[in-house]
Amino acid sequence: AASAAGVAIANDELTKMSANPKDWVMPAGDYANTRYSKLNQITAANVGKLQVAWTFSTGVLRGHEGGPLIIGNMMYVHTPFPNKVYAMDLSQENKIVWKYEPKQDPNVIPVMCCDTVNRGVAYADGKIFLHQADTTLVALDAKTGKEVWTVKNGDPGKGATGTSSPLVVKDKVLIGISGGEFGVQCHMTAYDLKTGKLAWRAFSEGPDDQIMVDPEKTMALGKPVGKDSSLKTWQGDQWKIGGGCTWGWTSYDPELNLVYYGSGNPSTWNPKQRPGDNKWSMTVFARDADTGMAKWVYQMTPHDEWDYDGVNEMILSDQQMNGQNRKLLTHFDRNGLAYTMDRVTGELLVAEKYDPKVNWTTGVDMNKSSPTYGRPKVVDQYSTEKQGEDVNTKGVCPAALGTKDQQPAAYSPDTQLFYVPTNHVCMDYEPFKVNYTAGQPYVGATLSMYPPPGETHMGNFIAWDNKTGKIVWSNKEQFSVWSGALATAGGVVFYGTLEGYLKAVDAKTGKELYKFKTPSGIIGNVTTYENNGRQYIAVLSGVGGWAGIGLAAGLTDPTAGLGAVGGYAALTNYTALGGALTVFALPQ
Amino acid sequence: AASAAGVAIANDELTKMSANPKDWVMPAGDYANTRYSKLNQITAANVGKLQVAWTFSTGVLRGHEGGPLIIGNMMYVHTPFPNKVYAMDLSQENKIVWKYEPKQDPNVIPVMCCDTVNRGVAYADGKIFLHQADTTLVALDAKTGKEVWTVKNGDPGKGATGTSSPLVVKDKVLIGISGGEFGVQCHMTAYDLKTGKLAWRAFSEGPDDQIMVDPEKTMALGKPVGKDSSLKTWQGDQWKIGGGCTWGWTSYDPELNLVYYGSGNPSTWNPKQRPGDNKWSMTVFARDADTGMAKWVYQMTPHDEWDYDGVNEMILSDQQMNGQNRKLLTHFDRNGLAYTMDRVTGELLVAEKYDPKVNWTTGVDMNKSSPTYGRPKVVDQYSTEKQGEDVNTKGVCPAALGTKDQQPAAYSPDTQLFYVPTNHVCMDYEPFKVNYTAGQPYVGATLSMYPPPGETHMGNFIAWDNKTGKIVWSNKEQFSVWSGALATAGGVVFYGTLEGYLKAVDAKTGKELYKFKTPSGIIGNVTTYENNGRQYIAVLSGVGGWAGIGLAAGLTDPTAGLGAVGGYAALTNYTALGGALTVFALPQ
Ligand SMILES: O=C(O)c1cc(C(=O)O)c2c(n1)C(=O)C(=O)c1cc(C(=O)O)[nH]c1-2
Ligand SMILES: O=C(O)c1cc(C(=O)O)c2c(n1)C(=O)C(=O)c1cc(C(=O)O)[nH]c1-2
Repeated sequence: AASAAGVAIANDELTKMSANPKDWVMPAGDYANTRYSKLNQITAANVGKLQVAWTFSTGVLRGHEGGPLIIGNMMYVHTPFPNKVYAMDLSQENKIVWKYEPKQDPNVIPVMCCDTVNRGVAYADGKIFLHQADTTLVALDAKTGKEVWTVKNGDPGKGATGTSSPLVVKDKVLIGISGGEFGVQCHMTAYDLKTGKLAWRAFSEGPDDQIMVDPEKTMALGKPVGKDSSLKTWQGDQWKIGGGCTWGWTSYDPELNLVYYGSGNPSTWNPKQRPGDNKWSMTVFARDADTGMAKWVYQMTPHDEWDYDGVNEMILSDQQMNGQNRKLLTHFDRNGLAYTMDRVTGELLVAEKYDPKVNWTTGVDMNKSSPTYGRPKVVDQYSTEKQGEDVNTKGVCPAALGTKDQQPAAYSPDTQLFYVPTNHVCMDYEPFKVNYTAGQPYVGATLSMYPPPGETHMGNFIAWDNKTGKIVWSNKEQFSVWSGALATAGGVVFYGTLEGYLKAVDAKTGKELYKFKTPSGIIGNVTTYENNGRQYIAVLSGVGGWAGIGLAAGLTDPTAGLGAVGGYAALTNYTALGGALTVFALPQ
Repeated sequence: AASAAGVAIANDELTKMSANPKDWVMPAGDYANTRYSKLNQITAANVGKLQVAWTFSTGVLRGHEGGPLIIGNMMYVHTPFPNKVYAMDLSQENKIVWKYEPKQDPNVIPVMCCDTVNRGVAYADGKIFLHQADTTLVALDAKTGKEVWTVKNGDPGKGATGTSSPLVVKDKVLIGISGGEFGVQCHMTAYDLKTGKLAWRAFSEGPDDQIMVDPEKTMALGKPVGKDSSLKTWQGDQWKIGGGCTWGWTSYDPELNLVYYGSGNPSTWNPKQRPGDNKWSMTVFARDADTGMAKWVYQMTPHDEWDYDGVNEMILSDQQMNGQNRKLLTHFDRNGLAYTMDRVTGELLVAEKYDPKVNWTTGVDMNKSSPTYGRPKVVDQYSTEKQGEDVNTKGVCPAALGTKDQQPAAYSPDTQLFYVPTNHVCMDYEPFKVNYTAGQPYVGATLSMYPPPGETHMGNFIAWDNKTGKIVWSNKEQFSVWSGALATAGGVVFYGTLEGYLKAVDAKTGKELYKFKTPSGIIGNVTTYENNGRQYIAVLSGVGGWAGIGLAAGLTDPTAGLGAVGGYAALTNYTALGGALTVFALPQ
């Protein structure tokens, strides 16, 4: 009974707090991952007058993903490795109340695939939860910064690292893990909020008990998955080094008590070496929050041949579709397709390209009675499997970093549109044979990246209609938009650019209303809060991430950084490293 | 004849360019080191509306001293070690046109006494001159960033380092050197503008030919210095490891063709070990710009016992004093005394405390017929020499970092006031015996620092009348003001604080008119320029320097960082590292 009470309390606390638009209590703003705020002091009419209110350097270089949490007068700012956390008092001119800096073995840095990023801390129950690069999950007293408990989620010696943000659901802290480029058998894990004790762990591939599916009750496109649904799709023991990592965002529907997240690419990037569908890599998972058991699954890219890692966020919305109220899940996948699903059943409603340049597939088979129902139709010319090992498959769109990567989209219930920061990049992809050695890269492909033929811009910021599967408007950006969007009740949508601009656009038309050059390229997610009657917009600058790895790690060989260095080489003409928070408000 | 023409041209070019207030062509704004701008778009009436126009992270942590140069549409921004230089085009949204990053041996870092700072680049003749930490002076093509020539100014292996800014005078580049804490025999050196060839080098101590004095013609307080004026004041060969470094600012009077600069503390900090006046450490030098020969000298702190390094800038002004037009030189020394001198003759006109807490001296003997004329009267209680080796002399004010350190003051001809960023800090000082080893610290004293008894603030920003030797107004600051001031024709004076605020105050009254929290603590110097009809204010943030060494180098022992760590420990509650330029303007 005591535990049941605890359960109810933690859940209620966060649901209640996230309903208060003055705070920003979880990285995505709410359980539904909408990144939408009801604040409307800043409007399309006045955002042009926005000013910088204050700034804060984090003291750390390299890529700054995520954004601050704001709870009452307190703001919590995190950094990439070494994963510092600052607690600042907004009522005392942002004085630093406490600072936490874990001691971590820097040997974790070379096993982080895509820069030393961290997507942010979580709050619940008077504690701040930090997921360190070395996979330590630590609970800090939110008032003092003192450690309450810590637990180790994986082994960096084998290439497991931590970059994702925890999500607190009821009495559990959920956390994913990275290591798809090192052959880690990845998992989603729930720890006890009070003690850090393991509650459940669900792997992405392996035997049914490890992946926590019920052969009869776990559904895939309306059918039970059956026995050994994962094992059957791997050769031998390959699932043990199968990737399917879980470094993206997790959503939660309190009514259904389901958590949603995606799994990443199967390891290695050389498809020839791992015959089969490689389930459940590249999969949307809906799991029971208490038990971890999967309610339904959907594999978007069976037998990945392009590193179209499926971890991007699932945005939960309640919308009318064909006259029916539906509980929807919308997901912008790396593979260039945007999926609209029924989040209760896992039914696939829409699957459309959200960049017209996507060419590896002609689309998803939507015929429910077809044997390939729900599978993408692959174009031979762009199949790195068909072209074969040691062949450079050219002109595949999107590139491995997808039409969208970690940068989260936002959803406005006012416009019923999704605001999506996208990449507009193609690639050459040459798979080669690679042997697995624990803790060594298990990649097996050489890549180069560039804008689509005949074009020079590498990104678009788009508005998407998830019911029709259509782009409503699209703004060109010189570089990929690697920053997360924010939608607001003021009718303004915000995002950052790799050159370092914070931009505000009209939610209805996409018209640019304001831009400001922050200290460094933005790969953080825009946040808003209210303090002392004033609405603020906050964003972390600090160029890096996969797109900015050339700058962040000082690489210059075009194929270095898993192929990203060449594509984004021109970034060096616009910005330099440096973690800094910039906070905006209207003049008083 | 060709060379004579070259001489005239370089000189004219800079004099002309520095007269154009739209540009900021040398670190101090002009040859007179006034840091005054004729720009007056930003006024005391409207500065309260100032906004951040744009920002730029330098990609380097640790202390950022100095400030950018602005020449037409180009801005040049430098960083501390590794001493990057960015050339940005203001007409192209500050696009980075070129970037220069020298390859330097990081072993220079531990021989830099007071953080890895650099006080800025110089411009002349289509070239940007950079003084690297490793003492390399490099000339870069201002258009392309390509190296034109480089020359090595000293040996970091023996503790010689570079932090000071070059000054171009006619066809020569003048540059000082650091190493007073390593027993370097320091010097001012002139190199040929076109080729980097050595033109002259004048040491601070040693034989007459090395120190470039004429026993008959070089004057000290109206009398010829006489033969061996330096050698006579050192025991044996001690002058060879005598310090007297030249890491501060140099001024130039084109009419008199004299350059002015100060020399630093004698090595070691233990006064017992080096009997004598230790000339010409702690000295104001006036030298012929062409030949390097000293016209006059004045030693402010003979036989230093407190590290009251005399390098602070000499500000040249033409003012009326007692009804007479005088060519003045005003200097705010580390020792807590502000000196007003006739810069033609070296006559001492005023020497007064610019912080009433200064207690090591009762003042300077101003009686021209006294045998101690021009010497400070030392108070026994605060004499570390009198108290002796291994005795902790307590409560000496100011502390070793002086009433003012590297942070330059500004002078407004409109108000005829000097605006001085000051330290309000006292110390305990315990000298101990130390042996000289080349390349090892040669300090010989343990220090701790704290605010004056009964007070909590560690700095003041003051307005000073150099004719009367009086404080006109004084603003308290929680920490020492380690940033350089800017005075403007708009009647506004600007400076930065260690917490990170850029502040604007009324030049007449000191009333605070505006403040803004920049990303990191400010130890840079405020700059102004005009571009496209708009006046901008620019300042580098990036906490560090001697005062911020605890944060910059991650030190926590209170006596570490030559005693500064304890005194400034509270800084960690206000700011974190990070180099960033913040540029302000009025709303359009
Ligand atoms: O498979 C993995 O374990 C894994 C981890 C990460 C990560 O943790 O940052 C990325 C990726 N994959 C990846 O494929 C990818 O595109 C990517 C981009 C970024 C980033 O932060 O910019 N991280 C990651
Ligand atoms: O004697 C020297 O060679 C020397 C060099 C430097 C320097 O180059 O930065 C400083 C000092 N001394 C010094 O005494 C001092 O107070 C100081 C402060 C700073 C600074 O940048 O904050 N540098 C230096």
